[in-house]
Amino acid sequence: MSIKIGIFGYGNLGRGVEQAVRKNKDTELVAVFSRRDPSTVKIATPDVEVVSADKVTDYKDKIDVLVICGGSATDLPEMTPALVKDFNVIDSFDTHANIPTHFSNVDKAAKESGKIGVISVGWDPGMFSLARLYSNCILTEGSDYTFWGKGVSQGHSDAVRRIEGVVDARQYTVPVPEALEAVRSGKNPELTTRQKHTRVCYVVAAEGADKAKIENEIKTMPNYFADYDTTVNFITAEEMKRDHSGLPHGGVVIRSGKTGADNEHNHVIEYSLKLDSNPEFTASVLIAFARAAYRLNNEGQSGCKTVFDIAPAYLCAQSHDEIIAHML
Amino acid sequence: MSIKIGIFGYGNLGRGVEQAVRKNKDTELVAVFSRRDPSTVKIATPDVEVVSADKVTDYKDKIDVLVICGGSATDLPEMTPALVKDFNVIDSFDTHANIPTHFSNVDKAAKESGKIGVISVGWDPGMFSLARLYSNCILTEGSDYTFWGKGVSQGHSDAVRRIEGVVDARQYTVPVPEALEAVRSGKNPELTTRQKHTRVCYVVAAEGADKAKIENEIKTMPNYFADYDTTVNFITAEEMKRDHSGLPHGGVVIRSGKTGADNEHNHVIEYSLKLDSNPEFTASVLIAFARAAYRLNNEGQSGCKTVFDIAPAYLCAQSHDEIIAHML
Repeated sequence: MSIKIGIFGYGNLGRGVEQAVRKNKDTELVAVFSRRDPSTVKIATPDVEVVSADKVTDYKDKIDVLVICGGSATDLPEMTPALVKDFNVIDSFDTHANIPTHFSNVDKAAKESGKIGVISVGWDPGMFSLARLYSNCILTEGSDYTFWGKGVSQGHSDAVRRIEGVVDARQYTVPVPEALEAVRSGKNPELTTRQKHTRVCYVVAAEGADKAKIENEIKTMPNYFADYDTTVNFITAEEMKRDHSGLPHGGVVIRSGKTGADNEHNHVIEYSLKLDSNPEFTASVLIAFARAAYRLNNEGQSGCKTVFDIAPAYLCAQSHDEIIAHML
Repeated sequence: MSIKIGIFGYGNLGRGVEQAVRKNKDTELVAVFSRRDPSTVKIATPDVEVVSADKVTDYKDKIDVLVICGGSATDLPEMTPALVKDFNVIDSFDTHANIPTHFSNVDKAAKESGKIGVISVGWDPGMFSLARLYSNCILTEGSDYTFWGKGVSQGHSDAVRRIEGVVDARQYTVPVPEALEAVRSGKNPELTTRQKHTRVCYVVAAEGADKAKIENEIKTMPNYFADYDTTVNFITAEEMKRDHSGLPHGGVVIRSGKTGADNEHNHVIEYSLKLDSNPEFTASVLIAFARAAYRLNNEGQSGCKTVFDIAPAYLCAQSHDEIIAHML
């Protein structure tokens, strides 16, 4: 019997989850829920219903795990605690500073309903968090480094698009190779924001727009660009479509630490990702943890869980005997 | 109250565990057990007893977790099931093919005694196993690659030392850079044993020994060297001591896999280790999982566990609130 999956929200991430279900033979897509008019939403899987989001509770006995594909700013803080009243749920909430509050809201609702709510699953937070946690537990004295990219930051791209005279924009976050090399070599450098990453923007400007003004507005934008060395390239709409329509991303988590009586030995633990599609990879992580949510709830567990709270074996379609024999 | 640790076996790994206890403020070393005459064993921690191994059961109420630092060939298959009758234990059993049998022996004894036995902890098996498992659960279609080195292989060094005319030897396993690059780029190559690693030996020969014969015996040794390109360097005993007295190691686990409707997106997940001291790093992993063994047993759990069966939060000295706030 397969695990019945519902997708709540059908943007880039929801489409990625739909593909991930197809790659996991023990899961099956039951329905896609959208806030748009369902008749206007075309999905990739034949014979699966698209349902209006406000009808989701009608499906409470038909779905084992609901994968919530909403935004972290306003959607998930409302949706996840609300939907965990009727479903095992999983989300990719990624506003790091607000995770404790989100955890506590979801935990309360999930314990009341007897369901499991897994939050903040993806690659950061998610796999990068696991890399940080395992390596900190092993090397208790050391330094942590996270580099992002090369990849498209959707938040920064959106910020550039809001500037007057900008028709379209894509922002790449790029790690500084020399900084990465210094960390990998075990030198444990202290690095400023500017020393770790550069930002590269590709911008389609409106006809007659003041490009110098746009470039200056980007480079001086507080929080987003002011603390970085930023390069701005103006391109045509055709070039944007041809060269920048993908959503690649990735990054590196490194911990460098010491052992030995006189701290004479250095060790470097590195976890790195090179992703052609950020949403499809995130979706693949979500489906593995959706399997865990289903199993944990079947065992009678409830409440909020994170990637830290789930034994890795729960993520695997294979049996315990198989993973002990072939992966350990 | 700190977690009371015993070390059973005081070789390179046992000395590493002793150092790791000093780096983990919530743990405390209670006793070192040795099969040698205790009066001949000098340890690095003042005021800690060295006790004869056959007296270990006298300490059953004084130790929370016993870290068994024996060899996988003959020690651990006997020691771990025997010692788990009286102690929560942890070992670094690394004969991959025999893990299912070892698991089942330890599980039976541990369930009878109500203790926890964590087996096969270290970096391979251990952290590399976790890297393989997580990445296989995420990228269900793909290829796995493990490269070891550059580092000292003690088994291969011992094999060279057994050759007539060899006084001392050190063998380094070295990944082939071109193979590593092809895998990292997402090309998913099929690689033979010879294409993945080379072996480099440093040998101190006895005076008057036939070096050509030694070199030929090394290069043609079945299982150990015959399937590899091997380089043999003859050096003096002084050079051996000066340049090759460390035990560095490391390696890389990579999974490269596809997502998307037409498998149009490739993703590369890489976990890599660069270790100045193989035994001290392994010991640091052991202590983190010893903490987990203690906590699991305090919750009333018993039986055999592997790195796959333990939620990551159990490894951390910090509270759940702290790790949610700072590491997720």
